[in-house]
Amino acid sequence: RGAGGFVCIDFTHPSAVNANAEWYARHRLPFVMGTTGGDRAALNACVDAAAVYCVIAPNMAKQIVALQAALERMATDFPGSFSGYSLSVAESHQSSKADTSGTAKAISAHLAKLTGEADFTEACIERVRDPAVQLVGGGLSHRGVSPVPEAAIGGHAYHTYSMISADGKVEFQVRHNVQGRTTYAEGTVDAAVFLSKRAESNDSKRRFNMIDVLEAGEM
Amino acid sequence: RGAGGFVCIDFTHPSAVNANAEWYARHRLPFVMGTTGGDRAALNACVDAAAVYCVIAPNMAKQIVALQAALERMATDFPGSFSGYSLSVAESHQSSKADTSGTAKAISAHLAKLTGEADFTEACIERVRDPAVQLVGGGLSHRGVSPVPEAAIGGHAYHTYSMISADGKVEFQVRHNVQGRTTYAEGTVDAAVFLSKRAESNDSKRRFNMIDVLEAGEM
Repeated sequence: RGAGGFVCIDFTHPSAVNANAEWYARHRLPFVMGTTGGDRAALNACVDAAAVYCVIAPNMAKQIVALQAALERMATDFPGSFSGYSLSVAESHQSSKADTSGTAKAISAHLAKLTGEADFTEACIERVRDPAVQLVGGGLSHRGVSPVPEAAIGGHAYHTYSMISADGKVEFQVRHNVQGRTTYAEGTVDAAVFLSKRAESNDSKRRFNMIDVLEAGEM
Repeated sequence: RGAGGFVCIDFTHPSAVNANAEWYARHRLPFVMGTTGGDRAALNACVDAAAVYCVIAPNMAKQIVALQAALERMATDFPGSFSGYSLSVAESHQSSKADTSGTAKAISAHLAKLTGEADFTEACIERVRDPAVQLVGGGLSHRGVSPVPEAAIGGHAYHTYSMISADGKVEFQVRHNVQGRTTYAEGTVDAAVFLSKRAESNDSKRRFNMIDVLEAGEM
């Protein structure tokens, strides 16, 4: 609105989140922000006060967002339906990633509601950072992460969630394996197109997330 | 109601479905029916007319039913969110199973709504029936079905669903692997307990499925 279809794309640094948002708000520039961290409550308050159009999302991969929403819903609809099962989670990323995958933490929390494991914490998530291990993955057993292609050792996000019954006879697995960054770029473009349409139509809602983009079927 | 907590369990043959249901209805015996096939519309009409309490479900494994419901919901909420992805499905069962897994067909239909592959049919599902292949499974690649333990070659239900992006850089997988029949027996007991409580409380609803059992948290 007033920006002629211009949409800012923000992938910067946690320390820049709030200052950047204030600048977009002051200039009434619609923006898509994939940057995590900063003061999220202040971020929301700032854009709401300025009524600036924005998509704010910690994960731009819309398929992962869809999966996350589906598993959250499953945990809400059927809590404890996997009671007696035990959850194990492994994630593999390039060796420069020091912390545990945020997606792994979020999805694990949903799955732990299904198994009823209130004591499942971030510390239970296996982090694979050694390239030699990544190339092999879980190996012949099909447990653990999928093997990572050599070309993706420097940039990938592989996740395996497994729920196994107490007698070991039943196993459920979910995996999401991303090489490179293309899928995040595609989701960002989808979000920008979505946002520009909302601005053009002068939508009364102005702050969105990737679930909104997905539900609009904007892809 | 009138049966003193007695619940019939029916795992018989498709050809017996309707005659058995008529007999339960005539004697007002609550029943849990896992038998597939027969005339399902006539089955429902018969039990509804007699107002007999029953759980009718083609799959008694409640975790699989929960997964199926979650994926159906995901496909309804976010159709086309995996557009450009291609779906591949492999299932492995004991060699005596001639037809394609009904669960594989149902879940594939949901996932094909996500990828937008209207031409994905039962014929696209890979059926693994050769024990030599089952022991190895998808092998080192972590594609295809998980390797089947030797003790389960004679009785198992392994399923792998995979959605891969057009550039091959992103893969989502869902697997449900069952050895033996214990999980079905457990679900059946849950259904019987659920049904007996509904009958005791004189519930106005009388015909249920496994989603109802799950939603009641009866486990």
